Amino acid sequence: MNEFDKKLRKQQQNINQLLIEFLPQETSGYHEIVIEAMTYSLLAGGKRIRPMILEEVYGLFKPKSLSIEPFMVAIEMVHTYSLVHDDLPAMDNDDLRRGLPTCHKKYGENIAILAGDALLNRAYEIMLEGVMKYKLGDQGLLAASCLATNAGTKGIIGGQVADITYEDQAVDMDVIGYIHQHKTSALIEAAFMMGGYLAGQSDEVIKRLNRIGRCIGLAFQIQDDLLDITGDEAKLGKPILSDMKNKKTTYVDLKGVEGSKVIVADLLEEALSVLKSFDSTKTVFLRDFINYLKERTF
Amino acid sequence: MNEFDKKLRKQQQNINQLLIEFLPQETSGYHEIVIEAMTYSLLAGGKRIRPMILEEVYGLFKPKSLSIEPFMVAIEMVHTYSLVHDDLPAMDNDDLRRGLPTCHKKYGENIAILAGDALLNRAYEIMLEGVMKYKLGDQGLLAASCLATNAGTKGIIGGQVADITYEDQAVDMDVIGYIHQHKTSALIEAAFMMGGYLAGQSDEVIKRLNRIGRCIGLAFQIQDDLLDITGDEAKLGKPILSDMKNKKTTYVDLKGVEGSKVIVADLLEEALSVLKSFDSTKTVFLRDFINYLKERTF
Repeated sequence: MNEFDKKLRKQQQNINQLLIEFLPQETSGYHEIVIEAMTYSLLAGGKRIRPMILEEVYGLFKPKSLSIEPFMVAIEMVHTYSLVHDDLPAMDNDDLRRGLPTCHKKYGENIAILAGDALLNRAYEIMLEGVMKYKLGDQGLLAASCLATNAGTKGIIGGQVADITYEDQAVDMDVIGYIHQHKTSALIEAAFMMGGYLAGQSDEVIKRLNRIGRCIGLAFQIQDDLLDITGDEAKLGKPILSDMKNKKTTYVDLKGVEGSKVIVADLLEEALSVLKSFDSTKTVFLRDFINYLKERTF
Repeated sequence: MNEFDKKLRKQQQNINQLLIEFLPQETSGYHEIVIEAMTYSLLAGGKRIRPMILEEVYGLFKPKSLSIEPFMVAIEMVHTYSLVHDDLPAMDNDDLRRGLPTCHKKYGENIAILAGDALLNRAYEIMLEGVMKYKLGDQGLLAASCLATNAGTKGIIGGQVADITYEDQAVDMDVIGYIHQHKTSALIEAAFMMGGYLAGQSDEVIKRLNRIGRCIGLAFQIQDDLLDITGDEAKLGKPILSDMKNKKTTYVDLKGVEGSKVIVADLLEEALSVLKSFDSTKTVFLRDFINYLKERTF
């Protein structure tokens, strides 16, 4: 394992620990099952790239601080809630996620809906508490607000609605681009921008961070489309060819395997190039991360 | 129509107008349908008692202010999201709500799940924006945080989980009390406390407001149980005897119709008595409201 892999692994462990700390800690009541379901889905694997990005971006401008922890946890909770709801029978109807039964397969549809709701709600609860506890003022509020916008109808919910609406239909690049940007890229963009907001950065800096996030987010989703055709089921933890099965038009349908790979490479190069505008002694991990994405197989 | 009814009607109209203003205003994108569904559910009737309480409680301490509008809208959005999700086939499976088709009956299950998610998410987005816009600081953060707690696993989600868990089972007063307090009372308590937090009140005052909210919330839910047996379907906008059909144990099963009516009367008297500790020239509407609840038939 190389240095980057080691750091990645360690970061993931740290974030998993944080996630546990910030889950609801109630020890009484008649609702333990929903906390079990929240915990199950939150800890069922996951690359944790969103909180990792947030932390690294913050580190470009400021020394380490406990004050960003609630935001790292919140973005991962929002990501997990969206997966739990997307997997539901009424939505994508998926039985497996990261090699494990999806939340509704394990706890039933009703508890899965409520566990998703509770993760979304908890994300805001801990950010609000964090803003107060660490007296973050507008820097914290802008970060939380950025997550809200990117999680909402202008972000992942909008993307999922479009995805459902155009399922079974032949669609053009405009629609696919919209779905990819909203469904996948929005939260990765949020991770970049939240790190900047928490560090009190200007609109101009936030704009550059947003651009890096969008390049990575789009590249990531196109890779997902590619892996759904060329990937290894065991590594992915889910069946391949699901887009074909669900009659979903993907990037690969419109641009081909090779064409899509070129687009991914271009997007990641663009991300690296914008990243160069920041202090190069502090961007090592993010650069390694982008290079690591170039080779992503799961 | 008496003076109180007129004021109530006028308040409801004002709140409906506010709700429209704070819905997402996107005019482009591929996700219009979810905004239509959010709007449909938010504007499909509703007594608007939560925002009304919040406004009246704030008015006990401070002159009218635009700064509380985002919070009035947020609590109604959270209430509506919980109804949309509770009505889903995997939950209570209700076809009618306030005399109209439920969200999933009209827009499909997938859009109803996402519309609920979007209402919950939007509630936080507008509160966060409100705290920044009106520079509310901790007073706004405490109000938003109070809503988050009362909407979460310690509040309405916890109550709904218990409700589902104990469906089809004979339960005791302990469980019913838990379900009523969490599922129904939590948001009414939040309305009272949020009004106090926004007006910068002390913990001691918040505690008294919480107590009034709990009395009213519990009375309201016991009335719901009573109306499910003795109510008028046309006035209620939904079928009666649904608890019996769903084999739900209610207050009425354990305390009888007359016993439950006595408990409701006692709770509302307690609320009136705690309310007396506030400036009586400013509690007229809240007193009238509690007296109005005594006669509630829908």
